[in-house]
Amino acid sequence: MKKVAILGSTGSIGTQTLEVARENGDLQITALAAGGNVDLMEKQIREFHPVLAAMWTEKKAKELRDRVKDLPVKVVSGMDGLLEVATDPASEILVTAIVGMIGIRPTIAAMKAGKDIALANKETLVTAGHIIMPLAEECHVKILPVDSEHSAIFQCLNGEHKDQLKKILLTASGGPFRGKKKEELKNVQVEDALKHPNWSMGRKITIDSATLVNKGLEMMEARWLFGVEPKDIQIVVQPKSIIHSMVEFVDGAVIAQLGTPDMKLPIQYALYYPNRRHLPGDCLDFWTLNQITFEKPDMENFPGLKLAFNAAAAGGTMPTVYNAANERAVAKFLDRKIGFLDIPEIIRSCMAEHKVTENPTVEQILETEAATYELIESRW
Amino acid sequence: MKKVAILGSTGSIGTQTLEVARENGDLQITALAAGGNVDLMEKQIREFHPVLAAMWTEKKAKELRDRVKDLPVKVVSGMDGLLEVATDPASEILVTAIVGMIGIRPTIAAMKAGKDIALANKETLVTAGHIIMPLAEECHVKILPVDSEHSAIFQCLNGEHKDQLKKILLTASGGPFRGKKKEELKNVQVEDALKHPNWSMGRKITIDSATLVNKGLEMMEARWLFGVEPKDIQIVVQPKSIIHSMVEFVDGAVIAQLGTPDMKLPIQYALYYPNRRHLPGDCLDFWTLNQITFEKPDMENFPGLKLAFNAAAAGGTMPTVYNAANERAVAKFLDRKIGFLDIPEIIRSCMAEHKVTENPTVEQILETEAATYELIESRW
Repeated sequence: MKKVAILGSTGSIGTQTLEVARENGDLQITALAAGGNVDLMEKQIREFHPVLAAMWTEKKAKELRDRVKDLPVKVVSGMDGLLEVATDPASEILVTAIVGMIGIRPTIAAMKAGKDIALANKETLVTAGHIIMPLAEECHVKILPVDSEHSAIFQCLNGEHKDQLKKILLTASGGPFRGKKKEELKNVQVEDALKHPNWSMGRKITIDSATLVNKGLEMMEARWLFGVEPKDIQIVVQPKSIIHSMVEFVDGAVIAQLGTPDMKLPIQYALYYPNRRHLPGDCLDFWTLNQITFEKPDMENFPGLKLAFNAAAAGGTMPTVYNAANERAVAKFLDRKIGFLDIPEIIRSCMAEHKVTENPTVEQILETEAATYELIESRW
Repeated sequence: MKKVAILGSTGSIGTQTLEVARENGDLQITALAAGGNVDLMEKQIREFHPVLAAMWTEKKAKELRDRVKDLPVKVVSGMDGLLEVATDPASEILVTAIVGMIGIRPTIAAMKAGKDIALANKETLVTAGHIIMPLAEECHVKILPVDSEHSAIFQCLNGEHKDQLKKILLTASGGPFRGKKKEELKNVQVEDALKHPNWSMGRKITIDSATLVNKGLEMMEARWLFGVEPKDIQIVVQPKSIIHSMVEFVDGAVIAQLGTPDMKLPIQYALYYPNRRHLPGDCLDFWTLNQITFEKPDMENFPGLKLAFNAAAAGGTMPTVYNAANERAVAKFLDRKIGFLDIPEIIRSCMAEHKVTENPTVEQILETEAATYELIESRW
């Protein structure tokens, strides 16, 4: 039995992780943490029998506690609750599937407690990669990417020597507005942006995919995860998302990972690495696939991607500003308070005003996030 | 210094292996064997200083001996000469780049002498895979594929568990006549068949590529090399030869190897495995590549491929008949004695008359070859 704890169990990645557990008899769910969805959390507890469950607010925790008082599960709350789930002595691996910088401290705590990390929280590496990667080495724990692209790169590097890697080819679908110009993007509505052509994902990440900010964040994650410079990460638009990413080695050989758009594959791969298990569902059929097309990404009409390379080049606290500004801007867009093109404009503007702190501590990262939130609230 | 012996040094793979040696300072060429090209062999000896050289006939060996009498190189001939080169005590790895079943005995001798094999001789595995693969295990030597497709599969399997492999996706360019019907193939001329769209190769293999027999032979090689059933090898036509082959695992993940059509990559990979070295030359540029297309192979108009699956299913000596019949038929086609469509027809006819011997010995394989040659001479 492999013992698994999940941060963000009621979200998209969390529920799919539990589907993987349901389909495999040898994964034991020891602890779960969710935001506010008490109904779903109750169902998950009744099905998977964790010994520990966390809700973000004490009010929700109390509600849950009442509902599951017939079961031997401890219900906790707040950051202390998240930390308790992350460091739960019964677990071997922590799936960090919560969104936002709130994931950083529990991830660090889990690593220090010797847990491997199935990483689905982008912010952890984007803002604190310089802390996380050396810490993983120090704590002898694995960072196993759950994101489709990073899992693909991780799979392509399997058995290879890291110093023989020349570059990473991070593929991008281009999102629902690929090919559109700024003029056409001006009046994009929330409903349009939420229609992703290939992947079914959470709302925030779907908007990020439409602005290409998602690819920018992935580039920054890849930089830390695989120890490459941003200049050695090439974004390749491949609209059908058949190729999940590729790597090029010093001899010119390119290794690619391809598959259907099913997040359960990278989740399962991370949980069972280095083994692969049967996964129900469709497989690629190259006889009917017809073609795979490639394009250069359009950084002019989608400046969110270009800004990510700028943020990565500036380093220090700048990726935190990029991420925090985007997070708030997307929330405002989803609330219909700003337009689609205001998202990269807000990021650009926040970055322009930021003075970089090199090698920031977690506290400095969180301060930078708070300062960025404040700037946005005061201005937009 | 890695010490390398080459069978077939004056052919396409042989000369490219020497190019790789020229570009890398740490490969030492210890022994060379060639057919009849004394001029080129003399040049190779003067540049690479092997201690041993073999020509197929004693007449050619004598000619060479006279030309290089100023150098400390021993010149040998015949099958004994080939065996001496293959087992040369100074070498660590043998590149088997000669064409034909003549390569089987030297390959076996080299393995028994503890040499790793960089395998470019198709016939070895096609006809004697059931002998070679267990022998490699017994002798603790590696079989490192040099063919572009098999090297790709080998690279895709790097770091993976063999029992988690679901199928092999062997890619094929489809050759110069892809899309043509039997009616149009009837009057194909030698010159047309020798124009391969992507790869620059020897004459025999170029014709094999036009008939798809080459892909059939590769399927049979792959079967032994990677321990899969023929039914688990799917041929995928991918006309630009960008993807050199793929594998699918039990979880549905597909790993592919891509690159420019440069045989030096698989040669170098085999020589330095598991390491990769810088290789001069163009790399793939996905921003300008535009697209990769896929098709199902046309086994009706190109029955040579279908016959290979039949031969593999029949097993025993049948692949030897397939290979020997093809070899002679191609020679006759190159001599303009038969038409293009006669090639698969001769193979079919020889296979129809053959009574399979299960688990043949090398002697039985060579007898089968001789009998097939005889049948063809008597009839066509």
